[in-house]
Amino acid sequence: MTTMLHNPFYTAEVQGAYDMHSLGRFELEEGAVIPDLQLAVATRGVLNDDKSNAILIPTWFSGTHQAWDSLYIGPGRALDPEKYFIIIVNQIGNGLSTSPHTSTDDSIAMSKFPQVRISDDVRAQEQLLREVYGIEQLALVVGGSMGAQQTWEWAVRFPEKVLRAAPIAGTAQNTAHDHLFTNTLMDAITSDPGFNGGEYETHLDVASGLARHADIWAVMGLSPEFWNTEFWREDGPMSEGEPPFVSFDDFQARFVRPLFQMMDPNALLTMGWKWQRGDVARGTGGDLGSALARITAKTFVMPIDHDMFFLVTDCAKEQALIANSELRVLHSVAGHFGLNGFEKSFIDEVDANLRELLAAPVNGNDGVA
Amino acid sequence: MTTMLHNPFYTAEVQGAYDMHSLGRFELEEGAVIPDLQLAVATRGVLNDDKSNAILIPTWFSGTHQAWDSLYIGPGRALDPEKYFIIIVNQIGNGLSTSPHTSTDDSIAMSKFPQVRISDDVRAQEQLLREVYGIEQLALVVGGSMGAQQTWEWAVRFPEKVLRAAPIAGTAQNTAHDHLFTNTLMDAITSDPGFNGGEYETHLDVASGLARHADIWAVMGLSPEFWNTEFWREDGPMSEGEPPFVSFDDFQARFVRPLFQMMDPNALLTMGWKWQRGDVARGTGGDLGSALARITAKTFVMPIDHDMFFLVTDCAKEQALIANSELRVLHSVAGHFGLNGFEKSFIDEVDANLRELLAAPVNGNDGVA
Repeated sequence: MTTMLHNPFYTAEVQGAYDMHSLGRFELEEGAVIPDLQLAVATRGVLNDDKSNAILIPTWFSGTHQAWDSLYIGPGRALDPEKYFIIIVNQIGNGLSTSPHTSTDDSIAMSKFPQVRISDDVRAQEQLLREVYGIEQLALVVGGSMGAQQTWEWAVRFPEKVLRAAPIAGTAQNTAHDHLFTNTLMDAITSDPGFNGGEYETHLDVASGLARHADIWAVMGLSPEFWNTEFWREDGPMSEGEPPFVSFDDFQARFVRPLFQMMDPNALLTMGWKWQRGDVARGTGGDLGSALARITAKTFVMPIDHDMFFLVTDCAKEQALIANSELRVLHSVAGHFGLNGFEKSFIDEVDANLRELLAAPVNGNDGVA
Repeated sequence: MTTMLHNPFYTAEVQGAYDMHSLGRFELEEGAVIPDLQLAVATRGVLNDDKSNAILIPTWFSGTHQAWDSLYIGPGRALDPEKYFIIIVNQIGNGLSTSPHTSTDDSIAMSKFPQVRISDDVRAQEQLLREVYGIEQLALVVGGSMGAQQTWEWAVRFPEKVLRAAPIAGTAQNTAHDHLFTNTLMDAITSDPGFNGGEYETHLDVASGLARHADIWAVMGLSPEFWNTEFWREDGPMSEGEPPFVSFDDFQARFVRPLFQMMDPNALLTMGWKWQRGDVARGTGGDLGSALARITAKTFVMPIDHDMFFLVTDCAKEQALIANSELRVLHSVAGHFGLNGFEKSFIDEVDANLRELLAAPVNGNDGVA
């Protein structure tokens, strides 16, 4: 047995309360096995008697249930816990669900953590919903970025279970450019001598690799417009409790770098590998059109206008292949990181779109709203 | 005295013939001194009697005179050596002009090489043109990327000497986003333990840092469209003498990485530092409008549509501040690296614009064409 590393970032104190659900032995698509897969789950609201009010939210790269809970869910919002039973499932390897640094089983701890695919997460979530909650159909699946990748996989793999889908800032089939971008993020970590092939003693050993990882995120996760308009000067969630940022270097040094430096390197690499390979067409011999034609959900495809790697053009091409779908472009000067809710206007746009989607009648479910 | 490193990439055999011109002791804006500044210069054509047919081309990041000579200059082209005297000046620190790895003077060799600014290059070029060729006025200054930064500096600093200016894919004032992007390029090199604080024994010691440098270029120097349309499958300068590329990873491994792995790490860092700080407003107390108002040259501002860091929007803002100017957007799926002439259509666009610019009558010079 290996000793798990302690990292205070991945605690209920920092991320908010969650429950752990064991799925037992879980076979991964790549062939490896997680001896006891545990999913970290946060729920809001109450499941109604006919189990028709369930909404699933899978998490994004580096994130946990916390972002969705604090930014997108609340009474009077589209994701209203007074109407819906909302289940946020932390993705495998994100630091809360079974992850490299928390595994004590020698076969999967640290550098031995197996390669996990988006489809593994989706299969695990389907099992969780069925076994723990008896949920056979979802009023909505919604997620951002890697959460969008999981949303796509849900809608294609279990079309009969997904009445509505809202993939935000993420594609059904990852692009070559996005794959190369993710390589640079991962290489920033693995090239740090402190990474030690994944066998570091604390994530602090990899502080400089994590800082370079953060520096690449600054270029591609935010946007030219964010930096060039000095958006970081705005009051908002970035500046809470901080003295004002005085320069872009200062913002980078006091906000973006420290954020990623709190995280676990192996967790980021597990998620990065998974992200690079998101592809709903793996089940249809590589034919994206056939895969997307399986979708029966009413689908709002929601890219962000300034996103540098999940591009509006790429999302629009996919949306055009789905029968019951609409393209809803979101607006954020923060680009992909707009998901973090730096702008109230962005959150309001998401809210308005989800409200409309949830109100739309779909086959077998007329909308709870 | 330090021994200079031998790197075969920086030779006339690889880059084509050039002359070295000594400017003697050269004081840099940041305060340091280059004891004997040598500029590597290639010329084409013949200077006419009234010295009215001179065209200056400063070089871009990582490049030399070779790219311009092979791609953009030739009989019947806009840059026609039968009409013009064309002077291509390699920028300071590019590996051919005075550079870290070729300096034998202990005060500037390798890690001690001083910080050089765009304005240092432009002042050195002005001295060169005056002292060596007796040239007091240029029919055109044209350059791409960092060559565009130098073109801007020329037009602002020596307005009376620049009749026409064509900054291609580069801004007059570098942006915060571009600065942060360049940080990631430089950090890929300096974080390689083989870099050894700039005191490596051969550039091969830094092969892995240079590979990561190249990987970041692949994401930002090329474009999503380049990768996602598999443009690398096209016949062209990329595939010459190579077996066909079979995947984007293969293209990256056999084309982009080997290209940057031939280069000198300190040279790239010298140029990177300089690039980050390109700013014509340094002479006008930070007022970009005042700086650009100094320009009297007929100016074609020529950004590339898919460029990820010298954005069309940023170039258009600057162009709007110049009296006698036009915005001419170039088209290349290769993004910023379109400058390397992967597409004949791109080269033709540059040619047509330069032809028109050179034919335009300007104060004191009616166009040689």
